[in-house]
Amino acid sequence: MRSDSERICAPLATEDYGIQPMPDVSPPKWHLAHTTWFFETFLLKPFASGYRPFDPRFEYLFNSYYNGIGRPYPRARRGALSRPTVAEVLEYRRHVDQAMQALLGRAEGEIGARVVLGLHHEQQHQELLLTDIKHILGTNPLMPAYRDDLASPAIPADAAAKLAFQHFEGGVVEIGAAGGGFCFDNELPRHPVLLRPFALADRLVTNGEYLAFVEDQGYRRPELWLSDGWTAQCAMAPLEARTDHPRAEPVQGPLYWFRDGDTWYEYRLSGPAPLALDAPVTHVSFYEADAYARWAGYRLPTEAEWERAAAEQPVAGHFADRDVLHPLPPRPPAAGGFPLRQIFGDVWEWTASPYTPYPGYRPLAGALGEYNGKFMSNQLVLRGGSCVTPPGHVRASYRNFFYPGDQWQFTGIRLAHDL
Amino acid sequence: MRSDSERICAPLATEDYGIQPMPDVSPPKWHLAHTTWFFETFLLKPFASGYRPFDPRFEYLFNSYYNGIGRPYPRARRGALSRPTVAEVLEYRRHVDQAMQALLGRAEGEIGARVVLGLHHEQQHQELLLTDIKHILGTNPLMPAYRDDLASPAIPADAAAKLAFQHFEGGVVEIGAAGGGFCFDNELPRHPVLLRPFALADRLVTNGEYLAFVEDQGYRRPELWLSDGWTAQCAMAPLEARTDHPRAEPVQGPLYWFRDGDTWYEYRLSGPAPLALDAPVTHVSFYEADAYARWAGYRLPTEAEWERAAAEQPVAGHFADRDVLHPLPPRPPAAGGFPLRQIFGDVWEWTASPYTPYPGYRPLAGALGEYNGKFMSNQLVLRGGSCVTPPGHVRASYRNFFYPGDQWQFTGIRLAHDL
Amino acid sequence: MRSDSERICAPLATEDYGIQPMPDVSPPKWHLAHTTWFFETFLLKPFASGYRPFDPRFEYLFNSYYNGIGRPYPRARRGALSRPTVAEVLEYRRHVDQAMQALLGRAEGEIGARVVLGLHHEQQHQELLLTDIKHILGTNPLMPAYRDDLASPAIPADAAAKLAFQHFEGGVVEIGAAGGGFCFDNELPRHPVLLRPFALADRLVTNGEYLAFVEDQGYRRPELWLSDGWTAQCAMAPLEARTDHPRAEPVQGPLYWFRDGDTWYEYRLSGPAPLALDAPVTHVSFYEADAYARWAGYRLPTEAEWERAAAEQPVAGHFADRDVLHPLPPRPPAAGGFPLRQIFGDVWEWTASPYTPYPGYRPLAGALGEYNGKFMSNQLVLRGGSCVTPPGHVRASYRNFFYPGDQWQFTGIRLAHDL
Amino acid sequence: MRSDSERICAPLATEDYGIQPMPDVSPPKWHLAHTTWFFETFLLKPFASGYRPFDPRFEYLFNSYYNGIGRPYPRARRGALSRPTVAEVLEYRRHVDQAMQALLGRAEGEIGARVVLGLHHEQQHQELLLTDIKHILGTNPLMPAYRDDLASPAIPADAAAKLAFQHFEGGVVEIGAAGGGFCFDNELPRHPVLLRPFALADRLVTNGEYLAFVEDQGYRRPELWLSDGWTAQCAMAPLEARTDHPRAEPVQGPLYWFRDGDTWYEYRLSGPAPLALDAPVTHVSFYEADAYARWAGYRLPTEAEWERAAAEQPVAGHFADRDVLHPLPPRPPAAGGFPLRQIFGDVWEWTASPYTPYPGYRPLAGALGEYNGKFMSNQLVLRGGSCVTPPGHVRASYRNFFYPGDQWQFTGIRLAHDL
Repeated sequence: MRSDSERICAPLATEDYGIQPMPDVSPPKWHLAHTTWFFETFLLKPFASGYRPFDPRFEYLFNSYYNGIGRPYPRARRGALSRPTVAEVLEYRRHVDQAMQALLGRAEGEIGARVVLGLHHEQQHQELLLTDIKHILGTNPLMPAYRDDLASPAIPADAAAKLAFQHFEGGVVEIGAAGGGFCFDNELPRHPVLLRPFALADRLVTNGEYLAFVEDQGYRRPELWLSDGWTAQCAMAPLEARTDHPRAEPVQGPLYWFRDGDTWYEYRLSGPAPLALDAPVTHVSFYEADAYARWAGYRLPTEAEWERAAAEQPVAGHFADRDVLHPLPPRPPAAGGFPLRQIFGDVWEWTASPYTPYPGYRPLAGALGEYNGKFMSNQLVLRGGSCVTPPGHVRASYRNFFYPGDQWQFTGIRLAHDL
Repeated sequence: MRSDSERICAPLATEDYGIQPMPDVSPPKWHLAHTTWFFETFLLKPFASGYRPFDPRFEYLFNSYYNGIGRPYPRARRGALSRPTVAEVLEYRRHVDQAMQALLGRAEGEIGARVVLGLHHEQQHQELLLTDIKHILGTNPLMPAYRDDLASPAIPADAAAKLAFQHFEGGVVEIGAAGGGFCFDNELPRHPVLLRPFALADRLVTNGEYLAFVEDQGYRRPELWLSDGWTAQCAMAPLEARTDHPRAEPVQGPLYWFRDGDTWYEYRLSGPAPLALDAPVTHVSFYEADAYARWAGYRLPTEAEWERAAAEQPVAGHFADRDVLHPLPPRPPAAGGFPLRQIFGDVWEWTASPYTPYPGYRPLAGALGEYNGKFMSNQLVLRGGSCVTPPGHVRASYRNFFYPGDQWQFTGIRLAHDL
Repeated sequence: MRSDSERICAPLATEDYGIQPMPDVSPPKWHLAHTTWFFETFLLKPFASGYRPFDPRFEYLFNSYYNGIGRPYPRARRGALSRPTVAEVLEYRRHVDQAMQALLGRAEGEIGARVVLGLHHEQQHQELLLTDIKHILGTNPLMPAYRDDLASPAIPADAAAKLAFQHFEGGVVEIGAAGGGFCFDNELPRHPVLLRPFALADRLVTNGEYLAFVEDQGYRRPELWLSDGWTAQCAMAPLEARTDHPRAEPVQGPLYWFRDGDTWYEYRLSGPAPLALDAPVTHVSFYEADAYARWAGYRLPTEAEWERAAAEQPVAGHFADRDVLHPLPPRPPAAGGFPLRQIFGDVWEWTASPYTPYPGYRPLAGALGEYNGKFMSNQLVLRGGSCVTPPGHVRASYRNFFYPGDQWQFTGIRLAHDL
Repeated sequence: MRSDSERICAPLATEDYGIQPMPDVSPPKWHLAHTTWFFETFLLKPFASGYRPFDPRFEYLFNSYYNGIGRPYPRARRGALSRPTVAEVLEYRRHVDQAMQALLGRAEGEIGARVVLGLHHEQQHQELLLTDIKHILGTNPLMPAYRDDLASPAIPADAAAKLAFQHFEGGVVEIGAAGGGFCFDNELPRHPVLLRPFALADRLVTNGEYLAFVEDQGYRRPELWLSDGWTAQCAMAPLEARTDHPRAEPVQGPLYWFRDGDTWYEYRLSGPAPLALDAPVTHVSFYEADAYARWAGYRLPTEAEWERAAAEQPVAGHFADRDVLHPLPPRPPAAGGFPLRQIFGDVWEWTASPYTPYPGYRPLAGALGEYNGKFMSNQLVLRGGSCVTPPGHVRASYRNFFYPGDQWQFTGIRLAHDL
């Protein structure tokens, strides 16, 4: 499972491992080292007697944000580190994996819990690896493909034609992790919430629908935007500026969209391609999602509404399409039920809910308590996982969180309305 | 009532009217003009036939943030305007007030609603006038008093000695404006929420209690802080830097605190004074309030908890102490009930609740819809009003909102915990 | 003479005294206080026994940049000081002037030298007062006039029609102050320099000529610009943005130019007016002056060339036109000689010479040594004085200096070429 | 000769080729590509009929600053390009070198002149390669060595003990390139200058001497500094911050100095080493050089003084010490003359002369005219070459230029005084 991290990086050139084109993006090399650091710091150092650290300076270099461990190396400077090399980082991984073997025999209690946490942590970074690789390659004016063998499937033009809303009754429902499997501390405690009757779109907003918003001057109508979003999107440079692309004309829109003459394109992990109108729009900020919903006459769902609806759905989606690594048009609804499509494994769906602690929330003890809890301000909850989320990693109660202006994740839009 | 605005400014020197020491602060002259612009723009221009604008360029100059009216003059440049002069702005006020006389005879329906809104708007700016005047004078190295006749009352040393918690049952309660009087659109619709049993402190956190947090190295312990708060407070310059005060040593703490040797002081509207240990701490950010609560072993209340508790309290407090203009120690609880003290009119109490729309929220139509709705991201709800809020302006359902790093409002802390 | 400072401020509203629309501009109140501080600090405190400072805190508040006196109040924050008020500053001036009376009786030796320096210092600030007042009023969207009684004289359309070049032989010439009157330390020592034969334009570049450069796309042709100038002018916002003017279309050009439809205007101290094509262009940066010269096929003169030519000219010019306060078209050359026009008292002429010490330069002793010497990097020498320079203040050896991007001074262009 | 570029990079890891730790530093891969671009752009495209560009997009990607060719890719984003890879860049070099073979047969006239220019250009980047590699490795907290086989020679403690001054008469001397070999356009025309009698130190300032300045609180005494230098050095972060080094205490000083307890170290291309007190100080800014000279009671020489003195010296120095790549203590003076030591090939010596055009200067025609001329503002001239300058690249008339705050070049200090 941990080897998936190396597998994801396999198509990269050595040069791709060290680049940080913007502060939010971490170099792939850093992801490989940091996830290893996690096992070394939280398992080997406290529990493996006689463990010899691979390099004592890595405690500082690959600490992401755990002040309880010590002052971390500055995030925005991760791209300034040509050393350790990729080979040295891979050796670091082997060193730690080997040392972990001995510990895995004792993997129960606190040790077992931390091993499981470390593996889920690794999965989160496996998604981030793909997300950051897309940024590294997609903002390069050469726009190289991540893999040449990724399919850009032909999408039938009416694949997403019908948008319907499923209705839900109001009342008290329980949300939060129900037990029976791993969850992060921020999914707890399970607790009742009071919902009003609502309706949820049965699929995601498509590129074609979002394009209609763009062409309706959506980016120039302040009445559609939250105030901070308006300010942010006024400052938002279009992709051509972001990628320092020499020719194309400036446009505003989702992160990887660009235009050549009258034709719209987007950069995918398989390289630039004409915009697939029936695929879900992705790489939009919360501000864009919110403005789109207002323009369309709807709103975004709350996280409780989303979880209420998703709890009835099977955790299945496009995860498996590893030869695509891009959100795809919705599959037809299953015959006997599950009328909501694209709930899991397509794009992370912005909710209207700020990321705050559940009532009675308790973070983990010690430095591990910094994993989730200290980020509970200024961010919004996203639900459902994306096409680059490792299969098996998400669930109905899973809470992802990002800042409202963030575009570089595989984020998308599901509409809702009151009944 | 509108004349209160001029009365608040009466003690100022002409020079004080035009200063903008930081972008959040508006010059008093601007407040006087903008509140007038509100009546001119939303009442006289649409409803008073034949109305002659005082100066057509003011539509642009004194537009705060209503994109529906046109591009506003940049907020951070309000201090760059020496003209119009104070006298011209006062003349503008008279011009508009006079024109409003005719309209007031027809003050029913939409006109009446807008007049009422305009007066509540004016009250909000009356509070901001005092808040901004404090910043203008308090960050000047000369630290002049706003008024020489403001009492700095002797505070008995045990005035705030006893902190107790009042318990509340859980269950479904209604929050939001109940009708029967004016409210802003963001207080609606009234709706049920589900509460868990909780306890609320019967008074505010005092300066003395907050000082214990400072002296316990609260500002140097990252485990107490939200991540964004830690970053922000690391960047936060102490008062001496903020005021460019030449001598005093740097400290971190509430906005107007400073230290001379071993003695702590704070700047008040009556001038610098030794820190009143039993008065409520004020001018703290949400990050500071949250860190203090964590340090003390408690948490901040949600806005629903606060409103649940406040709904039983009379809207009375220290508003009346207009010869003080500073939060005062709690009065003893009333004999027959109302065990919560300092609920209204002392300091704005940070809640743990992000400022989001109530379910079913609808902003006003047209440009007036920008009044509240477009700010529903990145801010937190504050409740209860402060010692500089006009009496009669707040109520249990009133929702104020500021960014988590803001310190320049009269903000404070009330603790809560789960049961 | 010192009373000229108050006289210059007389037309101002109290509100105009405290504004700092950009960091380079100082509020008029500050100029009035700082020039007074100069006498208090360098004369009264060291030499007037028993002198009681007006307010000891002013030593810090009105120190411009003399680190030898102590840490100065930050320059960019001068506009944040509503206190002391204008009246208090005027009282400060009277207090110091009165105390100076006693000292003036002993005005010889060091005291005498410092008094003379203080008066020349005051004259420099009298020019800055007018320069900064123009910025305060001219960047206000209302563009009020400084004085209503300032003439905007009718300018004959061919007033500046003839541009000729005067030739000068090469060889060794002496530059620097020759003795026989006051000079600043940076004009010394007088020393020989070696010149090549050169030609100097007999008048300044006009608005009309500069407009031809603008209309020839001069601001879009990088080959005309120094690299730093190209970068700076790309970042340079046009006046409409600078003044936050709501309507006019964006243009690039001299600081106070703007356009309404096809007509060009400029803001003058008498208010906005159609661009006077035959008046000298002013408020251009060194980068603009240099780019214009390159476009025109010429170059800027060195300071030695300028001084060589100016040494033969009488120190007379448009100084006297105090009812204009704006550069005027050239007067016809005098019958018997003085073929160079507009040398003194029209606009400060950018030279190609970086501001460096003359060989053997020695700054004054003590903190007064900070007056000129420490600025001898990154700036360029300007010569000749402007229409707002106090008459009698300039001379052929006078060296003014500003950064190459500065536009807010009354700066202009004289062309030169090699022979 | 062009192959020296690859040879310099040979010790690097692939990861080192793409890093840009600060905007002034270019990734080694970029240097390899840009110098190739120079031949492709200025020779192959205009002169080699039928030449097929390696990748047409490189015209944009590897344009450094030639606006005449088109808008260049932003300098500060050079580190954001993981592609083309190192291997692809090396292939680009081979492609261009091969195409150049055909052209070299016709290398006369304009073609010949451009070939020579291209080779000198390549040499400049060979120096920059070593300079930037030092920054890439030296600001990494791991401080890896560039080469393990670089000697850190034992330096006798009195190697630099004697500092003497050589005297020069004043008078008219000629400076500028005298013909007889290649020179850049900025060394022309040769022209007479008038010098006063002066004295020049016979060797460079040493680390030990500079350390005395540091320990005499040189960085805390504003009277020693130019105003802009004081501001800049107040903002200058010490190496520990620059390198984000976790442990060492903050110090101010030359770029690569750091301190551990009482011992001073510096980072060299051979790795960290105790400070060699008798070696020349290097990696100081002009501001530091100027402040040191003032502290020591001297001044920096002008470029004319330097060239006057250097013209009598042989162009020989420590260039040859390619197993050191670090400035070394002075060699004893030659028996029969050449009393000035360390003139060539030790460190670039800051002069007091701003970089301005020589009288009559004419840049090359076309886009190649951007090579030198457009940088003639805000920079200062440095002379003499450094220990990383390719042998044969400098001469007495060579004018290098950098901004006064730049530290990352191999810059040093030679003292001068008037006679």
